[in-house]
Amino acid sequence: MPQIFKDFVMIKIAIIGASGYSGEELIKILLNHPHAEIKKLYGFSSAGLNISNVHKSLKGIIDLTVESFDENDLNEIDLVFIALPSGESMNIVPKIFNKGIKIIDLGGDFRLKNLNEFEKYYKHHHTAINLLEKSVYGLSEWNESNISKAKIVANPGCYPTSIQLALLPLLKNKIINENFISITSYSGTSGAGKSVSQSMIFSEVNESVKAYKISTHQHIPEIKQYLKFFSNSEPDFSFIPHLLPATRGIYTTISAKINSDYDIKVIDDVYENEYSEKPFVRLYKHDIPELKDVIHTNFCDISWNLDENKNLILISAIDNLIKGAAGQAVQNMNIMFGLNQITGLLKCTEKKW
Amino acid sequence: MPQIFKDFVMIKIAIIGASGYSGEELIKILLNHPHAEIKKLYGFSSAGLNISNVHKSLKGIIDLTVESFDENDLNEIDLVFIALPSGESMNIVPKIFNKGIKIIDLGGDFRLKNLNEFEKYYKHHHTAINLLEKSVYGLSEWNESNISKAKIVANPGCYPTSIQLALLPLLKNKIINENFISITSYSGTSGAGKSVSQSMIFSEVNESVKAYKISTHQHIPEIKQYLKFFSNSEPDFSFIPHLLPATRGIYTTISAKINSDYDIKVIDDVYENEYSEKPFVRLYKHDIPELKDVIHTNFCDISWNLDENKNLILISAIDNLIKGAAGQAVQNMNIMFGLNQITGLLKCTEKKW
Amino acid sequence: MPQIFKDFVMIKIAIIGASGYSGEELIKILLNHPHAEIKKLYGFSSAGLNISNVHKSLKGIIDLTVESFDENDLNEIDLVFIALPSGESMNIVPKIFNKGIKIIDLGGDFRLKNLNEFEKYYKHHHTAINLLEKSVYGLSEWNESNISKAKIVANPGCYPTSIQLALLPLLKNKIINENFISITSYSGTSGAGKSVSQSMIFSEVNESVKAYKISTHQHIPEIKQYLKFFSNSEPDFSFIPHLLPATRGIYTTISAKINSDYDIKVIDDVYENEYSEKPFVRLYKHDIPELKDVIHTNFCDISWNLDENKNLILISAIDNLIKGAAGQAVQNMNIMFGLNQITGLLKCTEKKW
Amino acid sequence: MPQIFKDFVMIKIAIIGASGYSGEELIKILLNHPHAEIKKLYGFSSAGLNISNVHKSLKGIIDLTVESFDENDLNEIDLVFIALPSGESMNIVPKIFNKGIKIIDLGGDFRLKNLNEFEKYYKHHHTAINLLEKSVYGLSEWNESNISKAKIVANPGCYPTSIQLALLPLLKNKIINENFISITSYSGTSGAGKSVSQSMIFSEVNESVKAYKISTHQHIPEIKQYLKFFSNSEPDFSFIPHLLPATRGIYTTISAKINSDYDIKVIDDVYENEYSEKPFVRLYKHDIPELKDVIHTNFCDISWNLDENKNLILISAIDNLIKGAAGQAVQNMNIMFGLNQITGLLKCTEKKW
Repeated sequence: MPQIFKDFVMIKIAIIGASGYSGEELIKILLNHPHAEIKKLYGFSSAGLNISNVHKSLKGIIDLTVESFDENDLNEIDLVFIALPSGESMNIVPKIFNKGIKIIDLGGDFRLKNLNEFEKYYKHHHTAINLLEKSVYGLSEWNESNISKAKIVANPGCYPTSIQLALLPLLKNKIINENFISITSYSGTSGAGKSVSQSMIFSEVNESVKAYKISTHQHIPEIKQYLKFFSNSEPDFSFIPHLLPATRGIYTTISAKINSDYDIKVIDDVYENEYSEKPFVRLYKHDIPELKDVIHTNFCDISWNLDENKNLILISAIDNLIKGAAGQAVQNMNIMFGLNQITGLLKCTEKKW
Repeated sequence: MPQIFKDFVMIKIAIIGASGYSGEELIKILLNHPHAEIKKLYGFSSAGLNISNVHKSLKGIIDLTVESFDENDLNEIDLVFIALPSGESMNIVPKIFNKGIKIIDLGGDFRLKNLNEFEKYYKHHHTAINLLEKSVYGLSEWNESNISKAKIVANPGCYPTSIQLALLPLLKNKIINENFISITSYSGTSGAGKSVSQSMIFSEVNESVKAYKISTHQHIPEIKQYLKFFSNSEPDFSFIPHLLPATRGIYTTISAKINSDYDIKVIDDVYENEYSEKPFVRLYKHDIPELKDVIHTNFCDISWNLDENKNLILISAIDNLIKGAAGQAVQNMNIMFGLNQITGLLKCTEKKW
Repeated sequence: MPQIFKDFVMIKIAIIGASGYSGEELIKILLNHPHAEIKKLYGFSSAGLNISNVHKSLKGIIDLTVESFDENDLNEIDLVFIALPSGESMNIVPKIFNKGIKIIDLGGDFRLKNLNEFEKYYKHHHTAINLLEKSVYGLSEWNESNISKAKIVANPGCYPTSIQLALLPLLKNKIINENFISITSYSGTSGAGKSVSQSMIFSEVNESVKAYKISTHQHIPEIKQYLKFFSNSEPDFSFIPHLLPATRGIYTTISAKINSDYDIKVIDDVYENEYSEKPFVRLYKHDIPELKDVIHTNFCDISWNLDENKNLILISAIDNLIKGAAGQAVQNMNIMFGLNQITGLLKCTEKKW
Repeated sequence: MPQIFKDFVMIKIAIIGASGYSGEELIKILLNHPHAEIKKLYGFSSAGLNISNVHKSLKGIIDLTVESFDENDLNEIDLVFIALPSGESMNIVPKIFNKGIKIIDLGGDFRLKNLNEFEKYYKHHHTAINLLEKSVYGLSEWNESNISKAKIVANPGCYPTSIQLALLPLLKNKIINENFISITSYSGTSGAGKSVSQSMIFSEVNESVKAYKISTHQHIPEIKQYLKFFSNSEPDFSFIPHLLPATRGIYTTISAKINSDYDIKVIDDVYENEYSEKPFVRLYKHDIPELKDVIHTNFCDISWNLDENKNLILISAIDNLIKGAAGQAVQNMNIMFGLNQITGLLKCTEKKW
């Protein structure tokens, strides 16, 4: 555990999976964090390289060699971030957990409590079942109390973050009809990571759009499980993810019926009550957010509108690599270590945070 | 009327509004059309300029001066295409109609039969009411017989084309629940034309997305009116248009409930029956179309999938400037003048067209 | 040989390498060509697939199965286009040549006459040396007479096309100083083909630029060889290719000193004399071309300007897949078969072609 | 003047022209600066609006109303940043200067000492001639001593920053031939600001490139003047700026002849000697920088290569809004107020800064 003085903590950090986009973003955020110190970077194919040769953007900023993971190196480490493809984290987490070191896993291995769902959607056999129940879902705005006590945090998926932050206040307050909710999301390409496939080369993505993984996306059971957990609802929803010709960001559009002829002010109040004390949710009310305004921030921008037929239209926008990955991970770190949530993530003139 | 010989027509054409993107596309298509001859180009701010200076892409291809419109010039003209901002066409159409010249209007002035709807959504007072009933809606695949006899064709909007072609077969066959259909569309920027506003400059659109005109878009009443006209249905739908960081194309995603526990093969058959004889509708069935594959074509690509909850997910993709504007206009011209629909629009090895 | 009547030729065509971007473009152009008939499509990994599943854009247009190449299939073929990665064509060409079938090779295997240069830049040992001298360089505007008699045409590289068309008139007329010419080119990503590498994924290319292969690009010896061949000059030039965040096109900017205090009109005349009878070179004179205006065309747009210090600035723009590959290949086919050069490539109202 | 204690400064700041892209970037940087406090934001058309409505990205971060400029409001201000279109700053600067307040002008009004050049390139009559000689050019790496004593800093243009940082070490050391240097730059669209014109809408810029202002760009005399000032050289150069289909960044490619048959190591040493103590210049040596790696940073990445003909190829990359505008302005503020140059601009683990 880090030494905590009244006004000073310095958290010693290891990152496993430093060579991906989420790893790069984590490093950038942590370098600006006054209470974090990056001690170890681990990678596979990048082991042996200086991290500033893996991510040239870090040249002149950080001078640290990526190493092959060895759990015996972690003696001075307070917290490990894991940013690996699904199926890899579950083989590493037990070794770290047994040392009493805190873990934030940015991947999907510890999000689903239901093993059948895990195997169906992730196509892996789970190898660390006993740690599943110990993991805490890191949707910061909705699970702060549990996160503050967690030893393992399963950081949410990017789509589920953008969807749940928009839907939960309404489901919790029984505002919308659970019989049918339509969710359409567009994601920047960095969500697919640095993995190489013909469908991700520039010539194929640019000036195009495509939907993918209709009804088979691994974020579907995650959304289901935590909508139930946080709002005790089990709505029937469709979710259609799309690839956007842009590098970063998720833009989610949700249509739903409302349960009664509510005035829009009722909905205004529901969101206001839920989020007025949350620094990273910006309520646009009936204005419409633009994706570019959340890029490179940890914000989730949310709007709501009623159309003529009293269909409710929700929009939410996040940066998939920040609020959808590395930023929310650091927000969770702040919560776990008793720091102000915004530390290292937001410098603002707002007095209230 | 053009002189029609058994195997030869040469349609003499004027284009009003030649300097916009739809005008440019019309010119390009018509130059490749074996039975069309562009005789006159009209414009406002561009009057007096050579069209190849207005659209540099036409340099070396066509050498014609844009003129100020004068209805007395139209003596040898068989067909006038109008590609003007809404509210302008209705002042010009009567002058042309009275001369017995056929008209295809790419704008919105003659699409809505209901004047209240027109004024509410277009914010114009209609000045050619008596011609409204004479205009025929140019959704080529659904209105061919009427188009073939029309004197004025109101060419459909880009969004309505992509939405109606996907929805109509299902609504006509009572496959989907009309209580709630969710429609999300993403459009390339050329849909906004060449008009200049800060929100359309590259720095604002690039690497971003935004929804706009939720529940106020002028294509909503058009969709309503013609879903009823072609399928006798009045579904409750939400429609959320978005601006895509790409120049061309519309990608529409639709979610709906089905009326019964239909097997997907029922839906396969509905589409097959409707479109197997339509050269410009490509049925992807359960594969997912990519926007890039319709760009620069007159095709509409359509797919359908049922997710686990028996929510039906429809995708349709068109080029907004071609099937959503100039291409469908030429398809309608072909129908009006007794030509094969694909003339000038599609060279293919398929024997059946 | 095809049967040639006074006014009708139908050239029977095979394409080897139909599954790449140049292959796709060739197919699209040839489908619109009144004297071409695609008989055979050959591929490696795509063998056995319908070409409309390889290129979804061709769905509904052409229905032909890609086959594994077998030279015994070519009996009825008049012309073979080859669009393969460098080093592959030289193993196939001799088998076709021996059958007396004409060949247009879009790759680099038959462009360089100097074997040392070939091995140095292409890193292959040449296996068809005896055919090198028979191959004719297909820079259509400069080698028409030789092309018309050729049995093998080596279609030029994309960069060399854009560079030579701009430079040759000035070098031939000794207008510019050969001691130092600076050439900077930006290419769309389709120039790299469909090959998959991390550096070509959207997230790496988008919102970025990079120069590459400084002084090692395989187009350097091609430029050298043919500047000498066509203009008898051996200038010292630097060539720096860059990757542009766009799918198509090459934009070349050239700076050079002029040999004397020429008036700009002298230069105007040089270009006018050289290209006034060439349908695919558009002279912008002192106006500056935009890349978008040549995309999807076979044009090369060229401008020239003198700055205050009498430095000459040349700009040339082409579509890398059309004038830089498939379009020029078809232009060469037209020349080889005695057709008008513009056939299938340009429908225009210009009377003079 | 701010109260300066041994270890604490809090600089009170006003920004004139807060509603443009440079203004937005300045605000973001200063909010992260530990010794800066934004007290006043001034604008014209945006006066009366909250800055977070002008730049939605600032929502939840800063809550300050944009005001109409009034020099009588500046009593507590230590430093004014001006980010206005050319020709506007010179009317405001005298009023501020007379109050003894320090000024950093991001525009071009105080960069050129030669009035004829100013009027020729900027097309304005200068109205504050007496302050021209007092202004200090803010190329931080080359003018630190003068900047530290300056009352008015003329912050460099974006192109000149990227060009001079690459060229000056070589010119100062007489490495390259001054008879002809070819400079080609590509700039992101944010360099054109938020001003609205048809040529800047997304549909015109996307998937395109164009050169512009060949030999007439207002940065030409700036480059000339300061190459002479810093390296006592007067090279003959061509400069061709281009518009890149990307929001941010400048990528500059320079070709030149070297004066002698230097080994590349000589050039390595020249750069190393010049910049090893400069935190914001990253030397890539013979590796090639990618634009994306400097975006959102104050770095200038530089590489050099000799091609086979001993032509020297320089590449430099900056973020036009940061090192090319707001970032260098803050770097200059740090220098003027005796702070470490990197304060608020770079958090790094390098010990030496």
